[in-house]
Amino acid sequence: MTRIRFHQSLDDLKEKLLVMAGMAEQAIERSTEAYRLRDLNLCDQVQAAEPGINRLEREIDQLALDLLAMEQPMAVDLRFILAVIKINADVERVGDQAVNIVERVRDLYTMPPLDVPVDIPRMAALSGSMVRRALQSFIDADADMAESVLTMDDQVDAMNAGAYKTLGAIIQEKPAQAQYALDVLFIARNLERVGDHATNIAEDVIFWVRGADVRHHLRTGS
Amino acid sequence: MTRIRFHQSLDDLKEKLLVMAGMAEQAIERSTEAYRLRDLNLCDQVQAAEPGINRLEREIDQLALDLLAMEQPMAVDLRFILAVIKINADVERVGDQAVNIVERVRDLYTMPPLDVPVDIPRMAALSGSMVRRALQSFIDADADMAESVLTMDDQVDAMNAGAYKTLGAIIQEKPAQAQYALDVLFIARNLERVGDHATNIAEDVIFWVRGADVRHHLRTGS
Repeated sequence: MTRIRFHQSLDDLKEKLLVMAGMAEQAIERSTEAYRLRDLNLCDQVQAAEPGINRLEREIDQLALDLLAMEQPMAVDLRFILAVIKINADVERVGDQAVNIVERVRDLYTMPPLDVPVDIPRMAALSGSMVRRALQSFIDADADMAESVLTMDDQVDAMNAGAYKTLGAIIQEKPAQAQYALDVLFIARNLERVGDHATNIAEDVIFWVRGADVRHHLRTGS
Repeated sequence: MTRIRFHQSLDDLKEKLLVMAGMAEQAIERSTEAYRLRDLNLCDQVQAAEPGINRLEREIDQLALDLLAMEQPMAVDLRFILAVIKINADVERVGDQAVNIVERVRDLYTMPPLDVPVDIPRMAALSGSMVRRALQSFIDADADMAESVLTMDDQVDAMNAGAYKTLGAIIQEKPAQAQYALDVLFIARNLERVGDHATNIAEDVIFWVRGADVRHHLRTGS
């Protein structure tokens, strides 16, 4: 494989990862739209899309492995391929969260609608934009942008803590609404985990770009 | 680097991963002992151990990267190093689950003790043994053993579903116990995620040993 073809393959790898990330983001968007609209059709779409995301994960891993095997990549390329392998796993798990959310939406659908004072769409928008920004920082090799994702995560965590407080109070005070509130609580937690995956991706980007491992250094209290 | 030294380094990599896995398992064990005994001292120990787990994660990644960079590894070694990198991330997240559990235990400590009919210690024993068996299958390069981990995961999922049902009923019927039950519900869910990480590890072992990617093929309904 020539150096040029090797670099074309690296671009292919990046391209595939971006396609997969787009699918995972769309799944999160659809799952929370399914929540907002109580739309089972959107639930079906999210579940139907998951095998495709899983398939891309395998293709990306295989391509990364082939690239490692075929050539002796330079350190910078190794770091890039390693970042792809790690980001790949996190993107796939973002897709899993969307599936978890629609399972809750299906349960909510069996109950009369209830207006709970937790802004799930806003939380979804924030965690979704974290994923997008983390991937953009990867495309642009921009460690500063990746760092801004870590800050956004604090906001998502705060929203999740707020949801926990609000819904916990409903669960304690209004037993008839407890099951409903519990489902919404789990949806909030799934979105918090989307934020965690975006954070993992951002940390991998920083690791790749700066060549130094900042993971755990930037996390407070962990 | 000679071939022999390269293989010694692969052994070092495996050794470090096993040390880290041991620490993560111990953290899960301690966190559920902290739950059983309402022991804040054990909570402290779990939280104090986490930075060490994180540090080992970074060392393992760096060593894996160095091995990829220094030599053109053969396909079988590449697959092994790739497996280590992926297993590494999952083991670190097992440690994170232990920290999540002790946070709930601290909250439970502020409430009078309550006897809830959910067997957290048994769930912890099962998910802990999944992690151990997944790592053992890695040491032994035993894909059959790894597959047995996937079966165990169904049991943990069933226990988690049972906990959800039992605790959901308490939450609805006994508002005064709702906060307590909710904490226990989250502990059960954290243990279920430990099982998920063990499953991820087992799938990576199968991928490595069989040279074929069975991820997602063995999961029913996902």
